[in-house]
Amino acid sequence: MTDLKNDLYLRALAKQPVPRTPVWMMRQAGRYLPEYRATRAKAGDFMSLCRNAELACEVTLQPLERYPLDAAILFSDILTIPDAMGLGLYFETGEGPKFERPLRSMSDIEKLPVPDPEDELGYVMNAVKTIRGALDGRVPLIGFSGSPWTLATYMCEGGSSKTFRYTKELMYRHPEALHLLLDKLADSVIDYLNAQVANGAQSLMIFDTWGGVLTPRDYKAFSLFYMTKIVAGLNRENEGRKVPVTLFTKNGGQWLDQMARSGCDALGVDWTTDLETARTLVDGQVALQGNMDPSMLYGTPERIREEVKRILKSYGKGSGHVFNLGHGIHPDIDPENVRVFIDSVAEFSAQYHQGC
Amino acid sequence: MTDLKNDLYLRALAKQPVPRTPVWMMRQAGRYLPEYRATRAKAGDFMSLCRNAELACEVTLQPLERYPLDAAILFSDILTIPDAMGLGLYFETGEGPKFERPLRSMSDIEKLPVPDPEDELGYVMNAVKTIRGALDGRVPLIGFSGSPWTLATYMCEGGSSKTFRYTKELMYRHPEALHLLLDKLADSVIDYLNAQVANGAQSLMIFDTWGGVLTPRDYKAFSLFYMTKIVAGLNRENEGRKVPVTLFTKNGGQWLDQMARSGCDALGVDWTTDLETARTLVDGQVALQGNMDPSMLYGTPERIREEVKRILKSYGKGSGHVFNLGHGIHPDIDPENVRVFIDSVAEFSAQYHQGC
Repeated sequence: MTDLKNDLYLRALAKQPVPRTPVWMMRQAGRYLPEYRATRAKAGDFMSLCRNAELACEVTLQPLERYPLDAAILFSDILTIPDAMGLGLYFETGEGPKFERPLRSMSDIEKLPVPDPEDELGYVMNAVKTIRGALDGRVPLIGFSGSPWTLATYMCEGGSSKTFRYTKELMYRHPEALHLLLDKLADSVIDYLNAQVANGAQSLMIFDTWGGVLTPRDYKAFSLFYMTKIVAGLNRENEGRKVPVTLFTKNGGQWLDQMARSGCDALGVDWTTDLETARTLVDGQVALQGNMDPSMLYGTPERIREEVKRILKSYGKGSGHVFNLGHGIHPDIDPENVRVFIDSVAEFSAQYHQGC
Repeated sequence: MTDLKNDLYLRALAKQPVPRTPVWMMRQAGRYLPEYRATRAKAGDFMSLCRNAELACEVTLQPLERYPLDAAILFSDILTIPDAMGLGLYFETGEGPKFERPLRSMSDIEKLPVPDPEDELGYVMNAVKTIRGALDGRVPLIGFSGSPWTLATYMCEGGSSKTFRYTKELMYRHPEALHLLLDKLADSVIDYLNAQVANGAQSLMIFDTWGGVLTPRDYKAFSLFYMTKIVAGLNRENEGRKVPVTLFTKNGGQWLDQMARSGCDALGVDWTTDLETARTLVDGQVALQGNMDPSMLYGTPERIREEVKRILKSYGKGSGHVFNLGHGIHPDIDPENVRVFIDSVAEFSAQYHQGC
């Protein structure tokens, strides 16, 4: 049985009453923290840090030592699955992730294996186990994966892209090949996330970083369809407690109503959609996570506090809101501004839960 | 008096009856055309091409020689105003636009002049006059500018950006300084676009490439407010005919209803919002321009034709639609696919105008 000292995050996702709005930050274990940079230097490159369970655990816990956060998130990368499929993930300084062997043909796709999460991805499971042990019930541990569409874009482009030339060429010339790829990825993500839960993850999040570059019709067919398949394939209970699933499509504000019907428990919302609008769109079907502009942390402490108040007011009274940034924290943020942000959520949110 | 041989584009923007849907492409004079690359090689760098009225005219007309397009657009750059303000625009190969002297302080902003469009920007006016003469009434000439917010991001960042660190720091720390900058830019854009009209532009478009990175509240205050100011300051009639104004905010699909109340005549729509949704949102207040995914031109001819049909159907019957891509054409598109696209609009659109 889970013996959580702080389960505010899980209760908010279940829309159960909470005394204040829980808060965590996407990429909270990251370069803005000097202690992260020190551990990273010890590990060598980024993937070596991900592959070392002790060091991955160390950086996962660092932000919790500094700030009263309500959740921890597995330190890993969204591209571990394609790497385990044999594409050869690597990072060039200042360039983002790259693959040595991007997909270029139907036969490349046909040959892709569905990786065994306890074998090729065993290093991730070791990290989950180690972190879960070290957390000792302090806060819940979030496991995660990239969405099939988002993974496919990196696999086809060989890295980040502005135009998604190869992925869209596949979509508009050989949609059946792209569907085969997405289906294999969905199966892989299901196995991967279920293994994370079996090893101790208490909540799951699927990052669809690039769903927002699609037409509404293609978003449904090539991204949301496969996330829905994943949600249906997940073990949603562990240690006697529900494992909630959060979907996050960056720039997906227009499709929140459709996403809410995927069977997930919560939706991540970026800062381009007000939570009031989002809450109306999802009509009580799911909880919401978000949605402060990560660049707000470049602002003054007064401005940050004002924005926290505005966002809390936008969501309004009652449970079902997990405070977060609308995207990962930038590497050049002053850690003191993070403290202002986290403390403000605690300070100003209680009033929205009184009598609820 | 205007003596236009083809005024379909202007009639569609005015929602007057047309026998078929007019079409043009953002960046239609561009690198995907071998004849453009040849002229560009003659000119030297990109800005030399913009500054040479004869060559700018040559490339403006090149796509019209190839395809039956219904409008020409001035060949220029969105960043001519900041360059004329003294920031020193230059282009590095594969890197996009950069400024030698980005803005870094309030005093930098206070010192910025409002450029005289007939002096520092006289080369643009020469291009407008030359192109208008060479067009000889074949199709209307579109003049354009970047939006104040979009210009401000390049001026603060010194180039393109993923996080808009400096612009958002200014917004969240010194909003009064950013407002001063945006107000100067709005005044400059008004003078610049009015001069384009005085020199022969028959329609105007404002490109807000980066409005979509703002919260809804900041979009209103820092981008839409200044575009509305510009629309109010423009001379909307020339040579006895209305000069329509089109606003385009990339990733602005959620705000089309607010944009429609700016006083403009039309809105550009990117491919992440269906035209049916957009038409409902703007409720007959404005015409719509768009909205095929530029990456669709990587597709097969059959797929392109299918998409043109889908988009025409999405807009539905009646005037008020100008067909376009949802963003500029990519440089690596096959010109033959452009022909398929343009021809399909003519072939399939007539049925939507019968009896209207």
